[in-house]
Amino acid sequence: MISSSEKVSVAVIGASGYTGVELARLLSIHPLARLVAVTSRQYAGQAMSQVFPSLRGICDLSFEEPSVADICRRAEIIFTAVPHKTAMLVAPEILAAGRKLIDLSADFRLRDAATYEKWYEPHSAPDYLAEAVYGLPELYRDEIKNARLIANPGCYPTSIILGLAPLLRQGVIDASTIIADSKSGTSGAGRSASISSLYCEVADGFHPYKVGGSHRHIPEIEQELGKLHGSALTITFTPHLLPVSRGILSTIYTRLRKDVSVEQIAEWYNAAYRQEQFIRILPPGGIPATQYVRGSNYCDIGFAIDKRADRIIVMTAIDNIVKGASGQAIQNMNLLCGFPENTALSAPAFFP
Amino acid sequence: MISSSEKVSVAVIGASGYTGVELARLLSIHPLARLVAVTSRQYAGQAMSQVFPSLRGICDLSFEEPSVADICRRAEIIFTAVPHKTAMLVAPEILAAGRKLIDLSADFRLRDAATYEKWYEPHSAPDYLAEAVYGLPELYRDEIKNARLIANPGCYPTSIILGLAPLLRQGVIDASTIIADSKSGTSGAGRSASISSLYCEVADGFHPYKVGGSHRHIPEIEQELGKLHGSALTITFTPHLLPVSRGILSTIYTRLRKDVSVEQIAEWYNAAYRQEQFIRILPPGGIPATQYVRGSNYCDIGFAIDKRADRIIVMTAIDNIVKGASGQAIQNMNLLCGFPENTALSAPAFFP
Amino acid sequence: MISSSEKVSVAVIGASGYTGVELARLLSIHPLARLVAVTSRQYAGQAMSQVFPSLRGICDLSFEEPSVADICRRAEIIFTAVPHKTAMLVAPEILAAGRKLIDLSADFRLRDAATYEKWYEPHSAPDYLAEAVYGLPELYRDEIKNARLIANPGCYPTSIILGLAPLLRQGVIDASTIIADSKSGTSGAGRSASISSLYCEVADGFHPYKVGGSHRHIPEIEQELGKLHGSALTITFTPHLLPVSRGILSTIYTRLRKDVSVEQIAEWYNAAYRQEQFIRILPPGGIPATQYVRGSNYCDIGFAIDKRADRIIVMTAIDNIVKGASGQAIQNMNLLCGFPENTALSAPAFFP
Amino acid sequence: MISSSEKVSVAVIGASGYTGVELARLLSIHPLARLVAVTSRQYAGQAMSQVFPSLRGICDLSFEEPSVADICRRAEIIFTAVPHKTAMLVAPEILAAGRKLIDLSADFRLRDAATYEKWYEPHSAPDYLAEAVYGLPELYRDEIKNARLIANPGCYPTSIILGLAPLLRQGVIDASTIIADSKSGTSGAGRSASISSLYCEVADGFHPYKVGGSHRHIPEIEQELGKLHGSALTITFTPHLLPVSRGILSTIYTRLRKDVSVEQIAEWYNAAYRQEQFIRILPPGGIPATQYVRGSNYCDIGFAIDKRADRIIVMTAIDNIVKGASGQAIQNMNLLCGFPENTALSAPAFFP
Repeated sequence: MISSSEKVSVAVIGASGYTGVELARLLSIHPLARLVAVTSRQYAGQAMSQVFPSLRGICDLSFEEPSVADICRRAEIIFTAVPHKTAMLVAPEILAAGRKLIDLSADFRLRDAATYEKWYEPHSAPDYLAEAVYGLPELYRDEIKNARLIANPGCYPTSIILGLAPLLRQGVIDASTIIADSKSGTSGAGRSASISSLYCEVADGFHPYKVGGSHRHIPEIEQELGKLHGSALTITFTPHLLPVSRGILSTIYTRLRKDVSVEQIAEWYNAAYRQEQFIRILPPGGIPATQYVRGSNYCDIGFAIDKRADRIIVMTAIDNIVKGASGQAIQNMNLLCGFPENTALSAPAFFP
Repeated sequence: MISSSEKVSVAVIGASGYTGVELARLLSIHPLARLVAVTSRQYAGQAMSQVFPSLRGICDLSFEEPSVADICRRAEIIFTAVPHKTAMLVAPEILAAGRKLIDLSADFRLRDAATYEKWYEPHSAPDYLAEAVYGLPELYRDEIKNARLIANPGCYPTSIILGLAPLLRQGVIDASTIIADSKSGTSGAGRSASISSLYCEVADGFHPYKVGGSHRHIPEIEQELGKLHGSALTITFTPHLLPVSRGILSTIYTRLRKDVSVEQIAEWYNAAYRQEQFIRILPPGGIPATQYVRGSNYCDIGFAIDKRADRIIVMTAIDNIVKGASGQAIQNMNLLCGFPENTALSAPAFFP
Repeated sequence: MISSSEKVSVAVIGASGYTGVELARLLSIHPLARLVAVTSRQYAGQAMSQVFPSLRGICDLSFEEPSVADICRRAEIIFTAVPHKTAMLVAPEILAAGRKLIDLSADFRLRDAATYEKWYEPHSAPDYLAEAVYGLPELYRDEIKNARLIANPGCYPTSIILGLAPLLRQGVIDASTIIADSKSGTSGAGRSASISSLYCEVADGFHPYKVGGSHRHIPEIEQELGKLHGSALTITFTPHLLPVSRGILSTIYTRLRKDVSVEQIAEWYNAAYRQEQFIRILPPGGIPATQYVRGSNYCDIGFAIDKRADRIIVMTAIDNIVKGASGQAIQNMNLLCGFPENTALSAPAFFP
Repeated sequence: MISSSEKVSVAVIGASGYTGVELARLLSIHPLARLVAVTSRQYAGQAMSQVFPSLRGICDLSFEEPSVADICRRAEIIFTAVPHKTAMLVAPEILAAGRKLIDLSADFRLRDAATYEKWYEPHSAPDYLAEAVYGLPELYRDEIKNARLIANPGCYPTSIILGLAPLLRQGVIDASTIIADSKSGTSGAGRSASISSLYCEVADGFHPYKVGGSHRHIPEIEQELGKLHGSALTITFTPHLLPVSRGILSTIYTRLRKDVSVEQIAEWYNAAYRQEQFIRILPPGGIPATQYVRGSNYCDIGFAIDKRADRIIVMTAIDNIVKGASGQAIQNMNLLCGFPENTALSAPAFFP
C-alpha cells in the first residue's frame, strides 16, 4: 500500500469549488482519512487556506496543477469534483492505476450512454458506465462497498429519489403524475464568476430556471425512479434558485393508485429507512426545512395527504453540498473503506 | 362632500402592519388622494413615522384609536387593513355612513357564507357578501368602479388567478390537474411578534407550510378559478416561506385538454391582458422573478410547455404587499374614484 | 435646441451597471426628462429591459455602442456611469459639443490633479478639474446650477461629508480625531462578474476591506472635509461590505474641542439642513438605519454624545445607489435644468 | 460521583434559546460529556428536538421545569443560559451542592458589585463575585481549571479583549484612544418574540444601537482591558445589528504611544497567541471575515497600520454563539474537566 499510515490517503481533483472546500472540511474531522492532495488549475501554487480562509490552521495543503499520474501515486481514494466532461477524461487512468474513484460530476451517473449523449455531449468513456455504481447508499449500499467507480448522485436527484423510493417500491404511485418542484441554494450554481450568481442578482429574489423539462438532472432522476417503479416513467421537474447558500427543498406531488391511510404511508417510510442513519422521517404533520439540515448529512422527509384533491405531497430537505454532494461522497468513501458509515458525518445541523 | 380639497380623503383602519405602511407609502406619492387618518390600537398616540421611520418627513399623522364613526366623518374612502373577523364588524357602519370600503382582509372575498364559515369562523355580516366585489381589476374592473364594498384579493390568489385566467377562459385546462406551488416573502406573515417570524428562524432557510389543502386562501382561489372555468374545481396548493421580505412566485402545473402550440398560448395570454397596465407577459422562454417586480404593482407571467410530460407550467411573480395587497387596493381606489388606474402605481420595481 | 419636446433629453453612457439601471428607474418617473440613449459595449444591441427585466414595459431603449458624437447630437444632458479613467476620455468631447455632463465616476471629483494621480493614475484631462463642480447639492447648490461639468460624489463621501459638515462649519471638531467606520451594501462593488461578489461569498458574512488608509474615496472625503474645516485634515476611514444590496451606514467618531450640549448640537444640525429636502435630522437618541432610506434619496443623520469617553458619534444612512449615486445625479440634473430639486426623488423608502 | 459512566454529566438551565441549542449541538459531538437535562419554563414537557428540529435523532431529551435541586443530583457540570438576574438566584444552590457552574449570563463577570449594580441592577449574590473566574481561556486558563464558578464572557467583550490583549500587555497603547466599532449577527438578540428581531425588520438593513456609552458590555470590556493595561481606561463602544444570524466583527481603533513596525506588531500577536488553538493571527494585510469562522470556535485577528492618520486598526471575527458563547463555555468545561481543550471544538467553519 502507498500510505504507510493507518489512515486512508485521499485526493481531490478540482478542489477549488464549493464541493471541494466542503470535502476538505469534512475530511479535516475524519479520523480515518487524510487529505494528501488538492488540485486546481486556477489556484495552483496557492494555499487552499488562502482561497478558503475557513480552512486556516486546518488544512495546510496547496493547490497543485492536476497530474493524474502523480495523484494516483499518492492517494488511494480520489474524488473528482470537476465539471462533467472532465471526469470521464481522467477516470480510465485512475482506475487503471488501481485507485478508487468517487466522481461528483454527472459523467458516470447514467447507465445508458445514449441518454447521456442526448442530455450532455459525446461520452469518451462509455465502457465504464456499466461498472459505475450510483452512489446513493440508501439504495445501493452493497454495490458501493465493492465498487471501483462511484458516481456520486446529483443534489436534486438525491432529494427527489429518497423522497419517492418508499412509495415507488410499494407500487402505489400513478407514475404519470409525478411533479417535483425543487428549490436550491445558490452554492449549487458553483463558484465561477458569473453575473447571474452575484449577490445583488440573487439576494432578495426568487425564480425558477430550466423550466419545462430541460434540466440535466431529469434523466438521472427518471433512471432511478424508473428502476424503483419497475418501468420507465417521465416526470415534470422545475428547479428554482433560493437566496440562501445551502439547502434543497423538494416538494413532490403525485397521485396514489389506491386509497391509503396516513398511518400506512408513515409505516412504509419508517420501514424503508429504519436502518438509515441519515434519513429522518418526520411524524405526520411534520414539515422539513432546509435550516434544520444545514451543514449536516441528513435528509429530512415529510409527507401530507391532500384529501380534497386526492394527491400526496412528499417534502424533502437536504444540504445540497453535504448530502447532495460532498457529505454523500464521504459516506460512499466510508462504505468503500469499511469505515463506520457515519464517520465524520454525525454532527447535527447548525441552527440558527 | 366632507373634503373641501380636490383630493379624495382616505383613512386606513389598522395601519401598523406591513400593508399599512405600504398604503401610506403609495398614498404619499398619490397626487389625487390624501391620507387623513391612520388607526392602531397598539400604537395609538405615536407618530406613524416613529413606528415606520421610512415615513419621516413624508407622513405626519399619528396613530389613533380606531373610532369608525369618527373616521367616517373625515374620510371618503376607508381601507381596512385588519385581521379577518375585525373587518366584518366595522363594514356595516362604514357603508351605512355612505363611505366606500376597501377591505384587505378575507372577510368579504368569498361569495358563499357557508364556505367562509367552513374555512374561517362564523360570519357576522353575511348580507354584505353578495354585494362585495372581488377587487381584482383584471377580472372585475367594471364592477369595481361602481362598488361600495371591495374585497381586496389575497396575495396568493392574485398570483394564481392572474396566471391561470387566460387558459381557463379558453376552456383548455383539465381542471382536475391544477397544482399551485407558491413561495412567499416573509412580510406575508405580518408584523406581529412571533418566534417563527424572527430573523434567525427565517433567514438562510426555506420550508413549506399548511401543506395538504389547509391554507385559507384555497376557497378564494377555487371560487375564482371555478368561475373562470365555468364549474367548480379543486386544486392542490402548497405555500412556502421564502427568506426575502417581499415577493410571491407561483409555479403552477396543469394539463391541457388538447395539444396547443406555444404560439397559440402566447397569443391567448397577450390577448387576455393586452389592455392591462400591470400585467407583463414574458416572451416564450421568459422566466419571471420576484426581484424584478419588487416594490412595484406588476404581475409578470411566463409559461413553458413540458412536452415530455405533457404539462404546461405557468409562472407568476408579484410583490405580495403591492399587487398582492396595498398596491392593488390603491388600484381599486383609483377605479372607484375615476382616477387613471395607474396613478401612484406606475413606478418600476427597484432592482437590485 | 435639439429636443423639440418640452422634456430635456438625457443619455447614459455606461448604463449596464447598477447605477445605470437606477438612473433609468428614476428617469422613468421623471415628468420633465426623457431618456433617449443608453450605451453599453457589453450589451450593445440588446434591449435594456432584457438585461434588467425590472424595466420591462417601462424603458424600451436598446443598449448602443458608445459613440460620444452621436450621443451629443441626441441628448442635452449626459450621465457617464463608467469606471474612472473612461470618463476623462469622453468629457472634453461632450463639453466641446455644448452638452452638460454629470459624471458618476471619480475622474473630476478631486480639485488637485496630483492628488488624483497619487491615488488613481495619470489624468488625461486635468484642465477640467478646476471647472468641475463637486455635485453635493447641500454644499454646492449654486455652483451646480451653473455648471457644465458636475462630478457626482462618491457614495461613502456623501455619507461622511453630510454627517460632519455642520460640526466642521462650527469649528468645534478636533480634526485629528476623525474616524469614519462605514458599511456598504454590495451593489457598491458593481455588476461585474467577480468571485468576491458572488452570493455565496457575501451572504451571511461581513468584513472590512481596504483597511489602513488605502481606499480611493479618502482624498475625496478629506478634500471636502478640509474645505469645511478651513484647513487640511487627515482621517481614518474603514469601509466594510454588508450582506445587503443597498445602503451605507457610516459611524463617525470625533472629539469636540469644547464642551457642547446635546441641544446645541441638535440646533446646529437642524439649522444647517433646515432647507434641505433630503436630509432628515433625527431627534436626540434617534438612530438611522439603512432599511429606512432604501430606494430613496434621503440621508438620515443621528448623533450621540459619549460623555464617558468624551466623543461625539455621528451616524448617517443613505441608499448608496440613490443619494450615493444615481439619485444624487438626478438631483444635480434637476438643479442644472431649473426643475424642482426633488422631481422624481420625493418617494419614500421601501420598507420592508 | 453521581455518574457511573465515564462521561461527565452536564445540564443546561435555560436551554431554549440560541445558546442552548448550540450547547446541545456541541455536546452531541463531545466524546467525554453527556447532556442529561435541559430546562425551559416555556417549553417544559416538549422534546428539545421538537423545538429545534436540527436536533432530531441527535438529542432525545425533553425540556423540564427548572428544579435546581433535581438538576444538581443528576449533573456534575451545569450551564446557566438564562437572562442575567436569574443566574445569581440559582448559583448559590448549585455551588452549595458541590456542582461546577458555567454561567453564560452577565451576573458574575464583573468583579465589582457596585459596577454591576450601576449598569444592571441590585446583585443578590455579591459574595460570589470574588470567586468567579472570567472564562476567557486565553487570559485565565489556569484559574479556570480550578474554578467552581466560571463567568462565561460576553460575545462583544470576547471579540474586543482578544483583539487588544497583545498590544495592551506591551504597554504601547494610548488608552484614551480606544474605539470599538462592533457588528453582531441577530442571534445575539436572543430567541424571544419581539418585533425588532423579525425577519422583515432586520433583513436588508443595518443600524447601530445603544450608541454613546450605554451598552452593558462596556464595564466588562473595560474591566478586562484595564487589567491588561495596568490601570483603568474608558472606551467608546458602538454595537451594530447585522443582517446575518451568526458572527461578530469588531473593528477597533487606537493610537500607539510610539512608532512600531508592522513586523514588530505581528511578532507580538504571534507570540501572545502561539499556544492558542482557537486564535488565528492573519498575516499582514489579512482581513478577518465572519463567514470564515461561522459555526467554529475560532477568533480570527488581523491588524493594519494607518500611517497617514497614525492609528492602528485591529479587526477580529468570531461566531457570537460559539466563541462568543456556547463554544467558549464548552472550552471552559474542557479545562475544568481536564479534557483536551479543543474537544468537540476542532471543526472548521462552515463556508459557504
